[in-house]
Amino acid sequence: MVYLTRLEHFNAAHKLYNAGWTPEKNEQVFGKCANENWHGHNYELYVTVKGQPSPDTGFVFDVKQLSLLIREHVIEKVDHLNLNMDVDFMKGKMCSTENLAIGIWNELKKHLPAGVQLHGIKLYETPRIYVEYFGEV
Amino acid sequence: MVYLTRLEHFNAAHKLYNAGWTPEKNEQVFGKCANENWHGHNYELYVTVKGQPSPDTGFVFDVKQLSLLIREHVIEKVDHLNLNMDVDFMKGKMCSTENLAIGIWNELKKHLPAGVQLHGIKLYETPRIYVEYFGEV
Amino acid sequence: MVYLTRLEHFNAAHKLYNAGWTPEKNEQVFGKCANENWHGHNYELYVTVKGQPSPDTGFVFDVKQLSLLIREHVIEKVDHLNLNMDVDFMKGKMCSTENLAIGIWNELKKHLPAGVQLHGIKLYETPRIYVEYFGEV
Amino acid sequence: MVYLTRLEHFNAAHKLYNAGWTPEKNEQVFGKCANENWHGHNYELYVTVKGQPSPDTGFVFDVKQLSLLIREHVIEKVDHLNLNMDVDFMKGKMCSTENLAIGIWNELKKHLPAGVQLHGIKLYETPRIYVEYFGEV
Amino acid sequence: MVYLTRLEHFNAAHKLYNAGWTPEKNEQVFGKCANENWHGHNYELYVTVKGQPSPDTGFVFDVKQLSLLIREHVIEKVDHLNLNMDVDFMKGKMCSTENLAIGIWNELKKHLPAGVQLHGIKLYETPRIYVEYFGEV
Amino acid sequence: MVYLTRLEHFNAAHKLYNAGWTPEKNEQVFGKCANENWHGHNYELYVTVKGQPSPDTGFVFDVKQLSLLIREHVIEKVDHLNLNMDVDFMKGKMCSTENLAIGIWNELKKHLPAGVQLHGIKLYETPRIYVEYFGEV
Repeated sequence: MVYLTRLEHFNAAHKLYNAGWTPEKNEQVFGKCANENWHGHNYELYVTVKGQPSPDTGFVFDVKQLSLLIREHVIEKVDHLNLNMDVDFMKGKMCSTENLAIGIWNELKKHLPAGVQLHGIKLYETPRIYVEYFGEV
Repeated sequence: MVYLTRLEHFNAAHKLYNAGWTPEKNEQVFGKCANENWHGHNYELYVTVKGQPSPDTGFVFDVKQLSLLIREHVIEKVDHLNLNMDVDFMKGKMCSTENLAIGIWNELKKHLPAGVQLHGIKLYETPRIYVEYFGEV
Repeated sequence: MVYLTRLEHFNAAHKLYNAGWTPEKNEQVFGKCANENWHGHNYELYVTVKGQPSPDTGFVFDVKQLSLLIREHVIEKVDHLNLNMDVDFMKGKMCSTENLAIGIWNELKKHLPAGVQLHGIKLYETPRIYVEYFGEV
Repeated sequence: MVYLTRLEHFNAAHKLYNAGWTPEKNEQVFGKCANENWHGHNYELYVTVKGQPSPDTGFVFDVKQLSLLIREHVIEKVDHLNLNMDVDFMKGKMCSTENLAIGIWNELKKHLPAGVQLHGIKLYETPRIYVEYFGEV
Repeated sequence: MVYLTRLEHFNAAHKLYNAGWTPEKNEQVFGKCANENWHGHNYELYVTVKGQPSPDTGFVFDVKQLSLLIREHVIEKVDHLNLNMDVDFMKGKMCSTENLAIGIWNELKKHLPAGVQLHGIKLYETPRIYVEYFGEV
Repeated sequence: MVYLTRLEHFNAAHKLYNAGWTPEKNEQVFGKCANENWHGHNYELYVTVKGQPSPDTGFVFDVKQLSLLIREHVIEKVDHLNLNMDVDFMKGKMCSTENLAIGIWNELKKHLPAGVQLHGIKLYETPRIYVEYFGEV
């Protein structure tokens, strides 16, 4: 088994805000992240697939195709957008990095061709904070 | 002359939108950056001061003090905020990285102690785009 | 299961020196790392916890709290200090990156709140050398 | 169990070209990577070994020895060379990053001393593409 | 005056070889860089322009347009190619990073629109070696 | 004029301590940096030379020779050592990054061959703090 990873990035606005709570409780729990006027990040997204290299190409999967799939099914839906307002697969969820990584996994999972296994998502929110998700087990 | 640089960072939302233009012209000029619901970035801010090292300390300026000054007079005003809506020194200006770098220069300039010269501001909007400003000459 | 990682850093002096050996054997085994007057590093510390995201916050664990815990229970005990002389949890151990990573694991393990699992420690001694520890298994 | 990783790098030329295919099919599948006059990369190679730290040294393995082994058995064979033409352990294989990582694993596996286990190879072809291999399982 | 920088990258093969010298002298002067079968690099290219921010956009120059110009007039001519064999603006020159930076400057200089000044080229050959060129003065 | 830069690194211990002051004043001014048992850093050293590329080689200066000169005249004198105790060119000076950069400039200046101009020293003490020195002007 060989693991192949591609890095893509996107920029987005968001806030951490639980609509079922008072503004005071939101500020107490989320601090500056609850700013009602939003803040934002440069997200760095690592997508890892796994499989056996093909004898004809040496590839587990064509990394250019992987890049195109990520751009079409993820980046187009989140880049230069507002994660809370503009992203259908985040509707009704808290816009944490954890939930965003799970959401991205689910988007990619359904669009990868047969014979390529999605292994993991690694999502940097800042250079000092990242989340990893490997699917449900 | 010795140059001393300190890196700080902040996360913010913004959009590029000229209120004197139609939405169509804004989209044509700024593309995705004009998204009305905002997007955002992890900004990396390098501040450079210059001077002669003190014989007593070996310092051009105490880098901890420099860090505290940047945090007090810049980071507190922009971090986890909306550059268009929440930042007084950007009011009435286009929220480009160029104007943000100039605004940060002006904020710091007035708060540095006598004997320390501000040399330059280097501001990364993304890992692939940055702006530098060295004051008016 | 979702994995959340926070990066913190510290600067410290150390040497690699086995007091049960002659100076010659120490120099033969550890080379420049045995310099009796010490050398030092900028350590980069990645701490990973895991769990299920809370429906209320979207968090596996509040990353600000994670940062504060790492600072209180690790960074305060090692930063700008001498690992051989000043750090109680390294007393009587060789100050290798391996043992330092294990020591940091043990410190954090006892201070994480119930419901948060410590998954791993990744500790860079230089940009080209790092150690990972995931507890005893 | 503790994991120790060392980063080394090398620069090499290669092309992706299946000699059993027409030039048109090569171009269709590999695009610019099939350029007959070659292209090249700065490869970043992470090698991870694992084991128990020695009580005498605190080391899983002496990282200087690990570096020397990687340089002798891998870097010398690939650095500033042409992966398709000059590298014996890649003869007859497609020069993909996947196959290169497997080839490097096999070279290192046979030269690591008893008592040190090779855990994994992580090979960056560009800052946005990497492959990992952990041996056959 | 404000300086705006955009990073682009390309991968290429090359060798350092002076055709007026014997193979022995080439090897003596250029060492491994003279390997007749080529080697290669991931080049990181920083292009800096300067000017006054426009009041309408806040831009010195539209960074998306800058990116497109660099891609059209530089990246297309060098990416996944052989610098010695495939690049017209390097014909008859030694393929050093110095000459490549000058060649890239000259290509960009003639394609930047009026009102935008090219300030500098910074070209990384490896993460540890880079060259800067600011035009003839 | 073309500028060529080479990155080298070293690891060292130091403290900031003015022997003419009381321990209290040292702690007040230098804080944790005055710890009597030392701390340390991974220093990243960028050395820039400038000149005209040679028509025969395309080089401003052979970057391998530059690397060897830096290693012989700087790295050997500071790597895995104590900057306050073990480094002759820092004797009698405060071990600040400012003074270290000036000291390194002076060491290199006298060992560069005729025809190569030293342009600048850029010295990172941590990933967030660096100093630049371009000689006396």
